[in-house]
Amino acid sequence: MSKISPQLTLYTNHLTPNGLKVSIYLEELRAKDPSLDYKIERLDLSKGTQKEPWFIKLNPNGRIPVLIDHTRDDFPVFESAAILLYLEQNFDPKKAFSFDAAKFPKEYSSMLQWIFFAHGGLGPMQGQAHFFLHYALEDVPYGKKRYQEETKRLYGVLNIGLADRDYLAGPGRGRFTIADTNAFPWIRLHTRAGIETLDEWPNLKAWLSRVSNRPGVKAAIQSVAL
Amino acid sequence: MSKISPQLTLYTNHLTPNGLKVSIYLEELRAKDPSLDYKIERLDLSKGTQKEPWFIKLNPNGRIPVLIDHTRDDFPVFESAAILLYLEQNFDPKKAFSFDAAKFPKEYSSMLQWIFFAHGGLGPMQGQAHFFLHYALEDVPYGKKRYQEETKRLYGVLNIGLADRDYLAGPGRGRFTIADTNAFPWIRLHTRAGIETLDEWPNLKAWLSRVSNRPGVKAAIQSVAL
Repeated sequence: MSKISPQLTLYTNHLTPNGLKVSIYLEELRAKDPSLDYKIERLDLSKGTQKEPWFIKLNPNGRIPVLIDHTRDDFPVFESAAILLYLEQNFDPKKAFSFDAAKFPKEYSSMLQWIFFAHGGLGPMQGQAHFFLHYALEDVPYGKKRYQEETKRLYGVLNIGLADRDYLAGPGRGRFTIADTNAFPWIRLHTRAGIETLDEWPNLKAWLSRVSNRPGVKAAIQSVAL
Repeated sequence: MSKISPQLTLYTNHLTPNGLKVSIYLEELRAKDPSLDYKIERLDLSKGTQKEPWFIKLNPNGRIPVLIDHTRDDFPVFESAAILLYLEQNFDPKKAFSFDAAKFPKEYSSMLQWIFFAHGGLGPMQGQAHFFLHYALEDVPYGKKRYQEETKRLYGVLNIGLADRDYLAGPGRGRFTIADTNAFPWIRLHTRAGIETLDEWPNLKAWLSRVSNRPGVKAAIQSVAL
């Protein structure tokens, strides 16, 4: 490992699910390797810092999270799931939270399938539910209903994916990987989407409880809540 | 290579951008290796075939595309971008449309960043614009405006990403990879999102023309249009 310190900087914000998913993985990695040395820089999204020119150079989309790898010429990585995979490739040598893609191509692909499902479905659609319920300056009943219903449908898909297993990917009952890290912060905020309980999706409900109780997950939530 | 024939089956539909992106990659791969042997199965989405129990077993989300790898015990892969990465890992040994992740971690990550940007932003948001403009049973001006504006903003992000380069990822001016394959079918349908011209985003406009003129891309569009 390089002696550059910190190795990584994460630009993030504690209010967003996409920020939390990266914090969780970093905490889980540091629990395995205490020498992992990263810094958190919080952006005040209400001030629009993420739209300033210096940040647009790091992420043209003007969104957090962004990871900077100081061990590789300050290489910037944007998109939360791309950051998870960057960390997986470069900072998780034993694939403690993933699978070796060459040796376990099916398991690795299953993990990616759930990552893309959450990144393209769960996140954007639940995000729209949050928007119409809490942020839209107009009351748009059609939007509220559409995205809440779609979020529920997607919870149902995860409930199927979690039938007879503890985690989304991996042989047998699965094991905790970045597929879980990636979906968890959205499910955790289900009440923000107006979904009061997960009783309708018992596998998903049990999974939420299982993931919530991991020490690394608790530590990440605590660290971003400070 | 296995002697199982076909090696792959793609369940898809020619009307959707997410189906087309996989067809393009398969055509491009077959141009490099004519022995690649795959079958296309078209689903009639208007009949809801994608929601039938046999299909839900392949993809619990009930969506096309789904790839079946017959060379690996009929392993099913869902989510369009996960299919691209599965093909990249298992059927593109020379990384003709990607980068070797171990040797070129920055280039590989740049490719993934643009894949996730399109999968989590461009696709879902332009998809909502298409929905409110063409499919919603109610006229919802707020929805039309919100998603058309967001689509335009995202085109602006791609325009920044394409400044001084020909393709989204790779050194120098870049080279054609699955990051381009993944974004192209959405940009191609810009008029469906009520965006008549790309004049506002000249780098994106030039890129669309460049990608459209590739023989593999033309062949894929022709094959799905039959």
